[in-house]
Amino acid sequence: MSVYKHKVHYYETDKMGITHHSNYIRWMEEARVDYLEEKELGPDRLEAFGYASPVVSVECHYKAATTFPEIVEISVSMVKFNGVRMSLKYEMLKADGSLAATASSEHCFIDGKGRPVSLKKACPKMYEGLLTLLEK
Amino acid sequence: MSVYKHKVHYYETDKMGITHHSNYIRWMEEARVDYLEEKELGPDRLEAFGYASPVVSVECHYKAATTFPEIVEISVSMVKFNGVRMSLKYEMLKADGSLAATASSEHCFIDGKGRPVSLKKACPKMYEGLLTLLEK
Amino acid sequence: MSVYKHKVHYYETDKMGITHHSNYIRWMEEARVDYLEEKELGPDRLEAFGYASPVVSVECHYKAATTFPEIVEISVSMVKFNGVRMSLKYEMLKADGSLAATASSEHCFIDGKGRPVSLKKACPKMYEGLLTLLEK
Amino acid sequence: MSVYKHKVHYYETDKMGITHHSNYIRWMEEARVDYLEEKELGPDRLEAFGYASPVVSVECHYKAATTFPEIVEISVSMVKFNGVRMSLKYEMLKADGSLAATASSEHCFIDGKGRPVSLKKACPKMYEGLLTLLEK
Repeated sequence: MSVYKHKVHYYETDKMGITHHSNYIRWMEEARVDYLEEKELGPDRLEAFGYASPVVSVECHYKAATTFPEIVEISVSMVKFNGVRMSLKYEMLKADGSLAATASSEHCFIDGKGRPVSLKKACPKMYEGLLTLLEK
Repeated sequence: MSVYKHKVHYYETDKMGITHHSNYIRWMEEARVDYLEEKELGPDRLEAFGYASPVVSVECHYKAATTFPEIVEISVSMVKFNGVRMSLKYEMLKADGSLAATASSEHCFIDGKGRPVSLKKACPKMYEGLLTLLEK
Repeated sequence: MSVYKHKVHYYETDKMGITHHSNYIRWMEEARVDYLEEKELGPDRLEAFGYASPVVSVECHYKAATTFPEIVEISVSMVKFNGVRMSLKYEMLKADGSLAATASSEHCFIDGKGRPVSLKKACPKMYEGLLTLLEK
Repeated sequence: MSVYKHKVHYYETDKMGITHHSNYIRWMEEARVDYLEEKELGPDRLEAFGYASPVVSVECHYKAATTFPEIVEISVSMVKFNGVRMSLKYEMLKADGSLAATASSEHCFIDGKGRPVSLKKACPKMYEGLLTLLEK
C-alpha cells in the first residue's frame, strides 16, 4: 500500500463549489503512477520495455465532497495481478480523515502494436516486480 | 434514449496516441446534460428550483480505443429513478459502429444546503418530468 | 474566417461559477482545428504528410465571463503565414453577441524528428492550402 | 520570487507525446496559488474577505517541450500591483535546467457581486500583504 497526497487545484472545482467528479479518475492515475514508480515499475519503465498498460475499467464511489485548497490522501493497493490483468483499489480521505471516495481500476498489458500480452512471458522482469506488490 | 455526438479533441488524447480514459467520464456528463435538456430537465433548470444532482458513482468499461478526430456516438438512457436516486447507462460507439465503451452513473438530489432530498416532495415538477424518461 | 460554436460544459466551470480561464485555450484549439479541417488542412492531414504544428505561443484576453450552459461563438482567422510560422487570431462572443474574449496563437511546423521545417519546401501541398486562408 | 514544482501527469500529455500546451496555463495557477499561500494571501483568504481575483489575461511562450514523468520548476514573481490590477510573470524550467516556457498573467479584483474594486480601499489587509510581494 502507498499513500499519495493531492492538493485540490482551483481549476479542478466546478460551479457547485466542489471538485468535479471527473478529476478523481485523474487522481487515481496520479496515485497509481506514484505507487508503481516507488518500486521502479512506472509506466515509463514499462514503455522502455516496449509495453503499455491501458485502463480496462474504472469505478468511483463518491462519499463526501472535496474542494480547493484541500489536501486529499489517496491510498492505493494492488488486489489482483496475473500478468494479463491488474486490479487496483483506492481509498481517498479528506483532510479531517473522513472518507471522500473509494475506487478501483483494472488494467491489461499490450505490446507496441496494441496486442494484449501476458507480462509473465513478454516481460518477466516487470512481471516479477508487480507480483511483489500483490504479495504485500 | 438519446444519442449525443462528441468529436474527440486533440487535447483529449494522451501520449499513447488515444483518448485519455478520464475524458469518457466528462463525455458521460455532456451526453447526460444533452439528454436531460432535450426534455427541459437540465442541471440549470434543477438549479433554478434550488436543487442540484451530484454524482454518487460512475463506472466505465473501455472496449476499444478512440482518438482524434473521431466522432463518438453516446446513447444515454435512464434505468432507475425514484426521486431520491437516479441511474443512467451509456453506450459509446466508434465511427465504424463498433463498441468503444459502456458506462453508468448514479446521482442523488440535494437542496441549497447540501442536504439530500426526495424530488417527489421537494420538486414535483422535476420529479414528474424525470419519471417520464424512465417510463420510455 | 470561420465560426465555431462551443457549448460551455459543466466540467469547464469553476467554483467562481464561471468557465475556468484555461478552457479558452482549449476552445481555441477546437476552433482552429475546425477552421483548418473545413479546408482539409487539419492536424491529422498534416500528420499524414509526416509533419506536426506545435503551438509556439498563446495569448488570451478575457473581457466578460461565460458559464454553463452558454453557447460561445468563436471566429478564427489567419493573420500570418509564411510556411515557417502561422499566426491565428480568435474572437469569442457570448450568446447575447457581446465580447467574451480575444485571443491569438502562433505555430511552427516540425517533421517527425521534431526539427523545424518550412512547409514551402517540405510540404508544398499543405503550404499552398494554408496560403489560401491567408489571402482571404 | 517563489519556486513551485509540478510533475507532468500522464493525463497532461497529448498524442504528440508531449505535455498539451493548455496545461501550462493551469500550472501557472498552481504556482501562483502556492506563491500567494506562502504569504497567507491565497484565493481562499481573499474569498474569506468577500473578494475574488479573476484572470484578465494570460500569455505563454513555449520554448521546449516537456513530458511525463518530468518535473518542471516554475518560478513566479509579481511585476505589478496597485490594488486594482496585479501582474505576475512565470519562468518554467525543465529537469535539466533549460527553459521550457515563459509566461505572464494579469488579474483584477472583484467583490461578491462581480464589481471591480480597489483592494487599497476595499481590503487594506490583503492590499498591504500583496504590496510586500512587489517590493521584494
